[in-house]
Amino acid sequence: MDELNIIKIIQNNLKYKGSSHVVKSIGDDCAVVGMGENNYLTITTDMMFRSSHFPNILSPFQIGHRVITANLSDIASMGAKPLGIVVSMGFNNPSKKFIEELTKGINYATELYCCPIIGGDTNKSKELTLCGTAFGIASNPLYRYNGNVGDDIVITNDIGKVYCAFKILEMIETDKKHNNLIEEYSEIMEKLYMPIAQVKMGLLLNKYNYASSCCDISDGLGKELFYMGNFEVKSKKLINAMPKIVIEFCNRFNLNPVEVALNSGEEWELLFTTNKYDKINNILNKYDNTKIIKLKKIGKIIDKGHYLDDEILHTSGYVHKWSDKNE
Amino acid sequence: MDELNIIKIIQNNLKYKGSSHVVKSIGDDCAVVGMGENNYLTITTDMMFRSSHFPNILSPFQIGHRVITANLSDIASMGAKPLGIVVSMGFNNPSKKFIEELTKGINYATELYCCPIIGGDTNKSKELTLCGTAFGIASNPLYRYNGNVGDDIVITNDIGKVYCAFKILEMIETDKKHNNLIEEYSEIMEKLYMPIAQVKMGLLLNKYNYASSCCDISDGLGKELFYMGNFEVKSKKLINAMPKIVIEFCNRFNLNPVEVALNSGEEWELLFTTNKYDKINNILNKYDNTKIIKLKKIGKIIDKGHYLDDEILHTSGYVHKWSDKNE
Repeated sequence: MDELNIIKIIQNNLKYKGSSHVVKSIGDDCAVVGMGENNYLTITTDMMFRSSHFPNILSPFQIGHRVITANLSDIASMGAKPLGIVVSMGFNNPSKKFIEELTKGINYATELYCCPIIGGDTNKSKELTLCGTAFGIASNPLYRYNGNVGDDIVITNDIGKVYCAFKILEMIETDKKHNNLIEEYSEIMEKLYMPIAQVKMGLLLNKYNYASSCCDISDGLGKELFYMGNFEVKSKKLINAMPKIVIEFCNRFNLNPVEVALNSGEEWELLFTTNKYDKINNILNKYDNTKIIKLKKIGKIIDKGHYLDDEILHTSGYVHKWSDKNE
Repeated sequence: MDELNIIKIIQNNLKYKGSSHVVKSIGDDCAVVGMGENNYLTITTDMMFRSSHFPNILSPFQIGHRVITANLSDIASMGAKPLGIVVSMGFNNPSKKFIEELTKGINYATELYCCPIIGGDTNKSKELTLCGTAFGIASNPLYRYNGNVGDDIVITNDIGKVYCAFKILEMIETDKKHNNLIEEYSEIMEKLYMPIAQVKMGLLLNKYNYASSCCDISDGLGKELFYMGNFEVKSKKLINAMPKIVIEFCNRFNLNPVEVALNSGEEWELLFTTNKYDKINNILNKYDNTKIIKLKKIGKIIDKGHYLDDEILHTSGYVHKWSDKNE
């Protein structure tokens, strides 16, 4: 049985919907619960296993950072302010060093996102298992589905590095001679090692209420775009949203850069729609003195259909690379 | 490395404490986060694995019920009103039937506790892995540590069945001839199959503000008592808090009933202290028409020391039965 079938059975059986406080349950990046007086609690959870979620190349520190980042990216995509996170951990005979580095990575990320660990649970397990549940608060949560016709479709920073990083790991697995690519493309690998959840950008979007819809790019742009409504994306703009090093990598290894952009998952950039692109850009320049966050228009919300240039785009996206060993 | 060492390393490294909204993080049944205007969010998480948390005898329905109950018991012990729960699930090649029954059990429990599932995550994993994170709201959360000298120590319902149920399973594992005990002691087994979190009792204690401290009995009374302060527990009262069938079982199989009472974990009854026992009992009789919940005094908070009758009691309690295969 595949994941989609399992989810279908689960949704069919979980009939109890509870109180009217629940504004949104399954179906967005976070659940949303009304707390009175324009206060909404946003909640997300992410469970990760050693064999399916953490490439071997990641250090324990990076694994710790990653579990927090994956959860906080969902909080960011709702435009919520992080309140706290609980992390449950299952360990299979870990060394002291491993736990130390893992928890240092967790601590680093919680500080980066101003989101303290407020609880957790530890267990023995057959493999490293980490489950985070993060909480945020927003007066005006951003949802995925509200793109308006004419809105610009925008992403933060850039797209494509993570796809290329996984490609490098795949090439090394086939032939160790590719090992040197890790150093050569360290700029690409860095986004796999230490991805950043766009919490600050989410807060800005929420504060000024200029985005009509928002989600994070976790499963790949080619899948997430379909949540926003009808759209037209331009390949020229997509390529413009890719770092030079990624374009260079695509040329060298015969990859279609547009496909790379559409299928690069776990980027944890924000994807949002707005009719106030210039205003958002001005605000960003005002608040983000370090100029770290960049915005890139990649297309527009249209009346009907899903287009990449003049061609119909079918939903695609990143699929978790589950190793066959665990079937 | 054992669990306590692991927790120590984790606590040493998780230094970031975050905002002043966090009233309580690690150290009680729930984390507590201030939400303004006398509103506190209580949050708990519980991760469970097939091999270490679910006796083989449990049906998928009972497993589903159990993961919700374990989490809701922590919400109950804070006297909080359940708001919602997220459940992440890892499956190792499950049948359609298994997922259906599991999710029916989850749905049954969420309805029982008026706590809807509002999100989750599904994954492949090496064994069934369930991680719930429940959250509730309380104007006045009940903590573990505030027992006052002279307070009565009280438990809900009864104690001891779960220890005996595990004993039966252990005897069957040694010799199949004991299989008939399951039917003979079905009343005992029932509490292992379908334990109940004391959410209603928690809400009553919170509403009337008559409890000075409260926790749930998950690791065993012999361990939980030490959170409440200094105490004197009477073995006669403990035995009085045990169902007849448990006493009978203890006699037949040469078990010391007091030890059974102190070491019975995952009972998910409430343990609380109060100087208003009679008032609570009256309120309970008024609200609980079905007379399902009973209260039993087992001792008193005293000035100094930890006593069982006239003897000093040392901390003990239930330890998760992790199978050696997973070491």
